[in-house]
Amino acid sequence: MTGGRGEIYAVPGFLANGTHAGIKEKGRKDLSLIYSTEPAAAAAVFTTNVFKAAPVLLDMERIRSGRAQAILTNSGNANAATGAEGYRNARAMSGFLSRRLGIPDDLVLVASTGVIGHRLPVRKIGAAMGRLIRGLRPDGIAAAEEAIMTTDRFPKVAMRKGRIGDRPVTLCGIAKGAGMIQPHMATMLSYVMTDAAIEGSALDAVFRQAVGESFNAISVDGCMSTNDTAIILANGRAGNPLIRRRSKSLAIFCEMLSGVLSELSRSMVRDGEGATKLIRITIEEARTAGDAKKIAYAVANSNLFKTACFGQDPNWGRIIAAAGAAGVPLRDDAVTVWFEDIPVFRGGRGLSENRKGLSGIMEKADIRITVRLGAGSKSFCLHTSDLTHEYIRINAQYHT
Amino acid sequence: MTGGRGEIYAVPGFLANGTHAGIKEKGRKDLSLIYSTEPAAAAAVFTTNVFKAAPVLLDMERIRSGRAQAILTNSGNANAATGAEGYRNARAMSGFLSRRLGIPDDLVLVASTGVIGHRLPVRKIGAAMGRLIRGLRPDGIAAAEEAIMTTDRFPKVAMRKGRIGDRPVTLCGIAKGAGMIQPHMATMLSYVMTDAAIEGSALDAVFRQAVGESFNAISVDGCMSTNDTAIILANGRAGNPLIRRRSKSLAIFCEMLSGVLSELSRSMVRDGEGATKLIRITIEEARTAGDAKKIAYAVANSNLFKTACFGQDPNWGRIIAAAGAAGVPLRDDAVTVWFEDIPVFRGGRGLSENRKGLSGIMEKADIRITVRLGAGSKSFCLHTSDLTHEYIRINAQYHT
Repeated sequence: MTGGRGEIYAVPGFLANGTHAGIKEKGRKDLSLIYSTEPAAAAAVFTTNVFKAAPVLLDMERIRSGRAQAILTNSGNANAATGAEGYRNARAMSGFLSRRLGIPDDLVLVASTGVIGHRLPVRKIGAAMGRLIRGLRPDGIAAAEEAIMTTDRFPKVAMRKGRIGDRPVTLCGIAKGAGMIQPHMATMLSYVMTDAAIEGSALDAVFRQAVGESFNAISVDGCMSTNDTAIILANGRAGNPLIRRRSKSLAIFCEMLSGVLSELSRSMVRDGEGATKLIRITIEEARTAGDAKKIAYAVANSNLFKTACFGQDPNWGRIIAAAGAAGVPLRDDAVTVWFEDIPVFRGGRGLSENRKGLSGIMEKADIRITVRLGAGSKSFCLHTSDLTHEYIRINAQYHT
Repeated sequence: MTGGRGEIYAVPGFLANGTHAGIKEKGRKDLSLIYSTEPAAAAAVFTTNVFKAAPVLLDMERIRSGRAQAILTNSGNANAATGAEGYRNARAMSGFLSRRLGIPDDLVLVASTGVIGHRLPVRKIGAAMGRLIRGLRPDGIAAAEEAIMTTDRFPKVAMRKGRIGDRPVTLCGIAKGAGMIQPHMATMLSYVMTDAAIEGSALDAVFRQAVGESFNAISVDGCMSTNDTAIILANGRAGNPLIRRRSKSLAIFCEMLSGVLSELSRSMVRDGEGATKLIRITIEEARTAGDAKKIAYAVANSNLFKTACFGQDPNWGRIIAAAGAAGVPLRDDAVTVWFEDIPVFRGGRGLSENRKGLSGIMEKADIRITVRLGAGSKSFCLHTSDLTHEYIRINAQYHT
C-alpha cells in the first residue's frame, strides 16, 4: 500500500504483519502485529466505558511504564464481558508473543475487537504466532491494518513526514472502527508509529490533546464501546534531538500527529456503518466550550437529523429541535443556522427565501453546517455521518 | 369509535370534531376541536425545548389562569420557527374559534403539529371553522383524534370510568406522536377530558406527576420537538364532591389518570415510526433515581441496541456498552442483565450457558429487559421501540 503521493507506508525501526488465525471466517486476516525493533516510548488513551474489555485492563497497567515494543491485536472477538478468564486470556495472548520474540512480557500491548461476551480462542492465536512473526516486514503496515478491520469497508492509514532538528521524521497511523463511534473513541482501535525521539511525558501530553481533537470529536452513532484503544509508539530511530515538553520542536511533532489523527478520524466517519455523507457540524459563539460540545453532539446524534441528511433534505428544523433540547440555555432569536454559506434560520424563524442552492449542498458527500449561538465566543467542531438503511441492515443482521 | 369493551368514547359535557381544512393533502382531517360546554379547570405540560413553537408560547401564557374551554389543533404545519408572524397566526387561529363560539379568547388553547418553518395557512383554518363547529358532537372524539395524527399508523384513545363520592366519573384521553418521542414529550400532543370536579392546584399537581411517569418515561428516537403539549380539562359536570389536594378521592382520580396516560404512552411507543417491538427497560438497584433514569435512556437511545432488537438478537453486549457509557459510576461485577427471567450477564461476564430460550423472548412483540446495578435501591422504568428500516424510510423521505 502506498500513500496519496505514491509513498510506501513504513516507519524506520518498525515491522508489521497481519495473518489469519481462524477467529474470523473465510481466511480473512484476524491477527495483527506491530513491532518496534527496539523498546519505544509509549502513550495510550482508552475507552472510559465502565465495562472495559480484558485487553484494555491489561494495557492500562502496562502503559504506566511509558514503554512498549509491540502491539498484538485480534479481530473477530472483543474479549469483553469475559470476566477473570478473559483477563487470563489477554495475558496468555501476550505471553505467546513475548516468548517467541524474546522480549519482556510487559512491553507487549494487546487489543481485541469483535463480538462481546465470547471466550477468546487463545489456542488459535497461539498456533498462528509463528507465522505472524515470520511475516514481519517494514512494509507490513497494510497487512496489520487489514487484520484489525471488522465492518470497515476500507483500510485507514495516514502518514506524515517532516524534519525535526534537521533529521527526517515519519509518523504513520492506522485505525479501524465503523460503528459505535462517539466521543471517547467507541469501538475504535488506532495505532501510531513514529521514529521520532520524544520524552515520555511530552508524548503522553501531545497524544492526549491530539486524540481529544480528532477521535473524541467524531460521532457515528453515539455509542461507545468497551474496547477502544489508541496507542502511539515512538522509537527514537530518527536520531533527532529529544523532543521535550518545552521544546520548540514539539509544535512540529504535534502538527504532524494532528494531521495523522484527523485524517484517520475523518476516514472513520466516512466509513461509519452505512454512511453516505461526512457531515461537519461547527457550533460557534457559545458561552463555554462545554456548551458548544453538548449542542454539537445533540445535533450529531439526532436520528431525525441524520436521516434527513441521508434523504438530502436541508431540514434545519431538526437541527434547531436537537440544539434546543440539549439542555443548554439559549436565546432562540439569537441563534443562526447555516448550510455552508447560506443562512437558513435567523431571528427565531426559518428563511425560506434562501431555499435555492440548498439542494445542491445536500447532494454533496461532504456537508458543512454551522450553528451560531450568539451567546459568547467558544466553539466546537464535530464530524458525523448520516443514518441509513445500510446501518440498520449491518447492525440488525450482526448476531451475537 | 368504541373502547375495548364496546363502550363509546365520550365524556359528559364535552363535544369534539375533526375536519379537513386543506393543510394536509387528499382530504385528510387536519383540524381538530375539543370543546367543553362550560369553562373547565385546566392544566398543561409543554416541551422544554428552547425553540418553542408559537402555539406553545401562547398556551403557556393562557394556562396560567388554570381555566380553559376549548383546544383547537391543526396538523400538517407545526407553526414552529415562524417568529413573530407565527405568534400572530396562533392568536388568529384562536380568534376565529372564540368569535364563532362566543367564548373569551383566553379560554382557547391552540396546538400545531407538522412541518417546521412554514407559514401557517390561517385563511384555510378560518374558512373551515364553521364546518368544524357545526360538526361538534359528544361522540366526536374519534374524529378529533384523527385530525391531530401525522405519521401515526393508528389512533390512540384511552378511557377510564370510576366513581368518586358515589358519582360516576369519566376520563378520556387522546394522543398523537410517532417520531421525535423522548423525555419531555417530543412531538406529541395529548389531551385528556374529564367530567370530574377537581381543584385547579390538585389537577395541576396530579397531571404533572402522571405525565412524568408516562409520557416522560418513553423514548422512540431520543428526539424532542418544539411543539409537545399535554393538556387536561376537567369540567366538573360529574357533580362529585370537589377533589382537593388532600382529598382521599385524589388517589382514585390519580389512578384513573395514570391508567389513561400509561395506555396512551405505550400506544405511542408501539406506534413509534417503523417500530416492530415495544421494549420495557427497567433499571433497578441504582444509587439514585437520576442514575437509573440516565442509564435507562442511554440503553433506550442506543442505536446499536435498538437495531439488535429489530434483528431479534439478544445482544446484551450492546446493553452493557450503553449502560457503561452513561456517565454513571458502576462496579462492573455488581451489574446483572436479564431478558425476562433469564440472566445473561453477571459477575462481569456473559452467561452464554443461558442462551436457550432467549430467541423465543426476542421474537415477541413485547420485550422486557432488566438491568440491576447492585448500587442501591432506586429504579426507573422506560418504554422504547426498536430502530428499523421503516424509521429510516419515513424520516429520510419526509421532506421540508
